[in-house]
Amino acid sequence: MNYKVEKLKVNYKTLEEFKKFKEYGLQELSMLEDLEANIIENDSESPFYGIYFGDKLVARMSLYQIDAKFDRYFEPSQDYLELWKLEVLPDYQKKGYGQALVEFAKGFGLPIKTNPRVKSKSFWEKLGFSSVQYDMERDLGENPLVWFPAGVKEQTH
Amino acid sequence: MNYKVEKLKVNYKTLEEFKKFKEYGLQELSMLEDLEANIIENDSESPFYGIYFGDKLVARMSLYQIDAKFDRYFEPSQDYLELWKLEVLPDYQKKGYGQALVEFAKGFGLPIKTNPRVKSKSFWEKLGFSSVQYDMERDLGENPLVWFPAGVKEQTH
Repeated sequence: MNYKVEKLKVNYKTLEEFKKFKEYGLQELSMLEDLEANIIENDSESPFYGIYFGDKLVARMSLYQIDAKFDRYFEPSQDYLELWKLEVLPDYQKKGYGQALVEFAKGFGLPIKTNPRVKSKSFWEKLGFSSVQYDMERDLGENPLVWFPAGVKEQTH
Repeated sequence: MNYKVEKLKVNYKTLEEFKKFKEYGLQELSMLEDLEANIIENDSESPFYGIYFGDKLVARMSLYQIDAKFDRYFEPSQDYLELWKLEVLPDYQKKGYGQALVEFAKGFGLPIKTNPRVKSKSFWEKLGFSSVQYDMERDLGENPLVWFPAGVKEQTH
């Protein structure tokens, strides 16, 4: 499938669409408050990317580039992408939307770390993600999965 | 209620009991592998605390003291406790087990941060926890809740 992935702007329409996603939380509430208080402008940049079906947002993810100085996952240490809130609306699952978003993220050529909230390991493995060696001080209760571009490997401790 | 909270040791019996908890993940798998490979000793320290009903583990949480130099939540900056995997087995819920564990954590007198995975805000509010001002670079997709001992407040950015 060839889906068009778009960077989402912060506006009332998008924030209303976000309410359909299960992982609606403090991040979205905070964006709404900032918009209402004019702390951020309408249509300003968000960390979200999404795919529309017609004019309906049916899949989304957040991406944020972490600076190399905070990198505790990759060798050599480098900037990497944190990926979170990957979610496809129920009626649109199993159609390649999630995969299209993850492949889009890989296209930046940086290592990726994610901490999936639901049991979805086979989905991530199919896309080349693997578990890290658990490190309590770093990972606490997380179950991090990582993807390595060519030439990158896991940091050892 | 007056429940006895115990620090849990890493051994095969405890790790078997952990399998009954929904948030069984990389942390527990890693403890099991380390035990099997003799990397850690039987009955060594774990970050888990729990409450038994008879000889059955019915509630648990993880606690880890984060060093002040990593503190991005509290003012003044100080050591604080990260609390995760708070969970009570279904048949034992609504009986005060979860509250007993959290009150035990407060007893250390340090600020506490947690990132609950399930919608349980009223539970945490009743225990004096509150949301932080969302900071994307720090919180990413998390919904952190914090508890302040006397004299401590939220760090501003």
